[in-house]
Parts: sequence; C-alpha cells; structure tokens
Amino acid sequence: MTRKQGKIIGVGLGPGAADLMSVRADKAVRSAKIIAFFRKKGASGRARQIISEMLLPSVQEIVMEYPVTTEIPVSDPRYNEMLSEFYEECTNQLYQLTLAGHDVVILCEGDPFFYGSFMHLHSRLQPLCEVETIAGITGMSAAWTATNMPITWGDDVLVVLMGTMAEEEICARLAVADAVVIMKIGRHLPKIRKALKSAQMDRRALVVGYAAMVQQPVTPLSEYTEETLPYFSIIIVHGRGRRP
Amino acid sequence: MTRKQGKIIGVGLGPGAADLMSVRADKAVRSAKIIAFFRKKGASGRARQIISEMLLPSVQEIVMEYPVTTEIPVSDPRYNEMLSEFYEECTNQLYQLTLAGHDVVILCEGDPFFYGSFMHLHSRLQPLCEVETIAGITGMSAAWTATNMPITWGDDVLVVLMGTMAEEEICARLAVADAVVIMKIGRHLPKIRKALKSAQMDRRALVVGYAAMVQQPVTPLSEYTEETLPYFSIIIVHGRGRRP
Repeated sequence: MTRKQGKIIGVGLGPGAADLMSVRADKAVRSAKIIAFFRKKGASGRARQIISEMLLPSVQEIVMEYPVTTEIPVSDPRYNEMLSEFYEECTNQLYQLTLAGHDVVILCEGDPFFYGSFMHLHSRLQPLCEVETIAGITGMSAAWTATNMPITWGDDVLVVLMGTMAEEEICARLAVADAVVIMKIGRHLPKIRKALKSAQMDRRALVVGYAAMVQQPVTPLSEYTEETLPYFSIIIVHGRGRRP
Repeated sequence: MTRKQGKIIGVGLGPGAADLMSVRADKAVRSAKIIAFFRKKGASGRARQIISEMLLPSVQEIVMEYPVTTEIPVSDPRYNEMLSEFYEECTNQLYQLTLAGHDVVILCEGDPFFYGSFMHLHSRLQPLCEVETIAGITGMSAAWTATNMPITWGDDVLVVLMGTMAEEEICARLAVADAVVIMKIGRHLPKIRKALKSAQMDRRALVVGYAAMVQQPVTPLSEYTEETLPYFSIIIVHGRGRRP
C-alpha cells in the first residue's frame, strides 16, 4: 500500500506574542509532529522562540540555518547563489518528508506571504506537494498598534518600503504616500532620516522597537539619537485622512 | 464605594473566518459580557456574522447603525456632519457603560487601526477611558493568501490605495509600486482598469472576491468582464522582487 503524501503548512505566527497567532495557526503548531524553521547561525531563532511553550514533547524539529545573512552584501552574486543552493537543500529535505507521509509545519514570523523566507520554499515546493498557507498578523500591524494611533484613515495611501533602497528612491515613494511603514532599517537610518525630512515627515515619524515580543517601545524619530536601529525596528508615519 | 471604570476593547476579528482571529481576540469575544458593532441599516453586519457562534448566551449587544453609507456622496458636507454626530452618540453610549463599570468589546473586521470605523471611536474615547486595541489579520493578507502567491519579495515596495481616488492620482502611485493592493473598488473599476493598463500592470492584476468568509474566489482582472466589483473585493498585483 502506498502511503498518502504529506503536506507542507506555512504557518503565520504573527508579530511575536504567542496569543497574537490565529486560532488556526495555534492549532497547527500545537498538533505538529514535525516543525521546520529558519534561523541565523548560532541564534535561537525568533520564530522558534514564539512557540516555545506550545510544542508536543515528541515533536521533531528541522533547523534551517542560513548559510549567510549579512557577511556578504546582497549585491554580491555569491549571496544569491548560496541562498539558492540552501533553499534547494531545504526543499529537498521537506519534500522527502512529505513522500514518507509526514506533514511539516513551517514556522513563519508575521504573515508568510509578506516578505520573509517561506516564499522561497513555497515556490519550490508547490510543484511537488500540497502546500497550505495560514495568514498571520504582520509585524507592521503590531507596530502601529503599539503607537496607539490608527495608521490609515479614509482614503489614505499606505506605502511600505525597505530602508535598503537608495535615498532618491525612498523620496519618490514618500512623495505619494499619506501613511508610511519602513522596514529593514539598521545602518540605513541616516539616509532614511534625510528622506523623511525632505518629505516633511520627520516630525511625525515614530520608531517602534521590537522588545521581548510583548511590549514594543515607541519613540519619536526626532528624539532617537542613534545612527543605527536594530534590524527588526520599524518606522511608522501615520496617515491623516478624513476624520468625521 | 465607587465602581472601577470599565474599558473599551477594540478587537480585530481578522478577514472573516472565525479561526483566523487571534487567540487573544478569540478569548476577548468569548468572554465578552457586552459587545458593540457597526452595521449598515437593514443588514446583519459582517463583523457580527464572523463571531455568531462564539458569544455567551447572556451577552448584551449594542448595534451601531450608520445613518448613511452610500446614499449621500462622501464629498457632501452633510456626510461628514451626519457621521460625526453618529460617532459622538456611539461614544457617549459606550462611555456611559464604562462609567457603570462595564467592559465593552467592539467588533472590528480585519485590523482595527487599518482603515475601518473603530478609529473614529478610538480617538473620541481615548481621553475618556481606557481603550485597548487587539491587532488582527487584515483583509488584504487574506486576499493575497487566497491567490496562493506571495505579495512582496526582497525589497519590493507595497502600495495600498483606494479605488475612490482620481485616475491620475492612482497612476502616480502605481508608477512607484512593485506590489499593489486596491480596495474600495465598486463602480470605480473602469477607471482602475485604465490606470493599471497605463502602468502595464493589468495583465498581472487579480481580483479577489469575498465569498462566504472562507473561500475567496480569485479571477484574473483580464477575465473579469463586469463594470463593477462588490465593495469588499480587492485587486492584487504581486511584486516580483529578488528570488534566490
């Protein structure tokens, strides 16, 4: 008798607090026999931390360690080559598990289809087996909730952009935005600060840190004096649309 | 003895399926003694439908019926006046309940701070009482998940805009976007179609319907021949960023 092929479930874990995961995601994680997750070499893995209290004692864990994160610049062709090879290996390992009849839950921070790494497995695995994706609350939703102010009102335009872009590219986006979310900031902060100033948004910008997965500290950008921001910090500029 | 003032809890219900609400939201709804929700006159209310199986038998329900939805154009000053008066009345009713020591759960589709009506109560209630907000999965997350394709890759720029904007305004945003989400479409579809064509995005655009809260039908825009879309449908254009 042939065993039924297992499936891959990409589970959105939400922004960090375990109870901000959906009921569907919560069930998938708690009942998982095999989980897989990405992490930086030597780190414990943020996704894994979120669900640390939720796993079956017998769970099997597959650790997918990035071969490179910031050691090589993204522009170096080796960066893409190494990552591509890495995703191929992960895909093969997961595929073999489905062939053996196992379901595998892949832990995804935030929403699986909104940036992140799961999509690189999703595109490779989809021709090979069933892949289910469970949406999640994004990190940016948690960030604007932490500011205790709505991000978009009425017909506001929201622009989400990465701080890795060139300054003039950022300026072009800010010029047509009412509300803004900036991610991947790190050492790009001085450039982003200049772009926000050109767009006259610097006084409204807030920095939302990522602290201990529960309380996210909120600081006006104008009062934040450092030259860099931790990678998972987010800058928020609120919209000012129609308010009856 | 003075009674402790109650609080208002704006609960993000997520995109529609009850099990896509967060565990925290699920608990808040199931334990609520008083809920409040908006609805269009004569309708049953989408938010109320999502949680119909979850309420305590003894729950008290406060229905907040919009005095106007599409009968008066948004540009008419009476529109804002009527809504403003309506939000004041709702605020007062909710505030009185908190003074009597009651907590009230306000049902919010999607994420409470991402468009929607809750924010108009939030801004009014916040000076008067404690207001807690629980983030939720947005309708757009559910829409791109339904397409079974990631919305943003690498450093893609995501632009979220409303179909109510003028065509040239839409074009200006599409010109700097990699990935796009268009909401509030309805009778604005022909204009949006033209804008997407100018931006050479029309062949990539997908229409995601809102059907029965569980299965969302996905249709290429090029195959959708109607002149209007239901209000809650969303158009998605996927990003095409870095894919190692």
